[in-house]
Amino acid sequence: MSTFPTTARTTVRRLPKRGVYDKETVYSILDEGFICHIGFVVDGQPFVIPTGYARVGETLYIHGSAASRTIKTAASDGVEICVTVTLLDGLVLARSAFHHSMNYRSVVVLGKGRLVTDEQEKWTALRAFTNHILPQRWEETRPPTLQELKATSVLALPIEEASAKVRSGPPIDDEEDYALSVWAGVVPIETRIGTPIRDARMLPEVPEIDLNRFTRFQ
Amino acid sequence: MSTFPTTARTTVRRLPKRGVYDKETVYSILDEGFICHIGFVVDGQPFVIPTGYARVGETLYIHGSAASRTIKTAASDGVEICVTVTLLDGLVLARSAFHHSMNYRSVVVLGKGRLVTDEQEKWTALRAFTNHILPQRWEETRPPTLQELKATSVLALPIEEASAKVRSGPPIDDEEDYALSVWAGVVPIETRIGTPIRDARMLPEVPEIDLNRFTRFQ
Repeated sequence: MSTFPTTARTTVRRLPKRGVYDKETVYSILDEGFICHIGFVVDGQPFVIPTGYARVGETLYIHGSAASRTIKTAASDGVEICVTVTLLDGLVLARSAFHHSMNYRSVVVLGKGRLVTDEQEKWTALRAFTNHILPQRWEETRPPTLQELKATSVLALPIEEASAKVRSGPPIDDEEDYALSVWAGVVPIETRIGTPIRDARMLPEVPEIDLNRFTRFQ
Repeated sequence: MSTFPTTARTTVRRLPKRGVYDKETVYSILDEGFICHIGFVVDGQPFVIPTGYARVGETLYIHGSAASRTIKTAASDGVEICVTVTLLDGLVLARSAFHHSMNYRSVVVLGKGRLVTDEQEKWTALRAFTNHILPQRWEETRPPTLQELKATSVLALPIEEASAKVRSGPPIDDEEDYALSVWAGVVPIETRIGTPIRDARMLPEVPEIDLNRFTRFQ
């Protein structure tokens, strides 16, 4: 299986056995999340901003508006950024307070962002953003106008310096604590879709949206 | 209602009508999330790391191990950090690709972190971490030993320079697009608990955990 080279910056230092570097795991986490947190620095102050994204092959595209400080700053020449995606899978209840934990899967991507200026690449990224929310959604909605294309900023980050961190499974208690009469185990956290809320102004003949299309939730 | 003073750094610049500065909203978002993303800078490179946290009054406590680079770096004298908590509420499907969005609630807290050294305060923070995962959990589990207390690093961040950003409600389409025969509306994203997985080594007489205790999910 293909893996990312581990660098001093991406090697998981704390609990190294949780570090995962194969591309399949990294990509699957990126493809499952909806929101990333992008980190950038302004005058020494780090900012961490949630935003939409999508992966196309080995490139992560981050969505912003043309007016967005995040994208402008993050795309400046030579500026290092960090993009993190985290999925919470469960609450880990141990017999001791100390060993409480969470099951999660996270990916950290480091590197220099690049503002997408090529119209064809921007179009590809916008299609990816839309279909990342719902597969095939781009194909059924009105495509962007030239004006809308200009009003959208897209940041590209090569997925080269990347690592995943994963915790799964039951609590790990100290040996003597297994004798304690305390509930212990994992309480799964599930992300599901609720009943769709039709827009009040939608044409009445439009049929209900097919929930089977939300493949991430099955 | 009490509000945070808006500073140049916390004022929501992009779509300012989504900015929220009242403490009640900020606190409720912080209290509902499980994972925060902490941003800090090492040699000009920002890092964004997911970790557990809890709020006690006007202080945000961030959990780490004593060996953690995150906490060590973030607690260095005079170092600015950023802690962000994001809750995803729904996918906003518009009639045009451009107006697709997500409903979310997020909080950004900026400031200087402080390593908690006072034992009593550390104890308070550890209790808060445990009960943030599940109310009253601290009271039923084995409390930390002195050694465990030393093995845990706690970072304190005053919740002073903070703001929330909230999007809710239906898609906002261009007027002419309302005539399009495309499904439009909001698909809610719900976070729920699944069936608890009992630890294989739990004493058989321990009763099932009461799901009503997971008050965040009701």
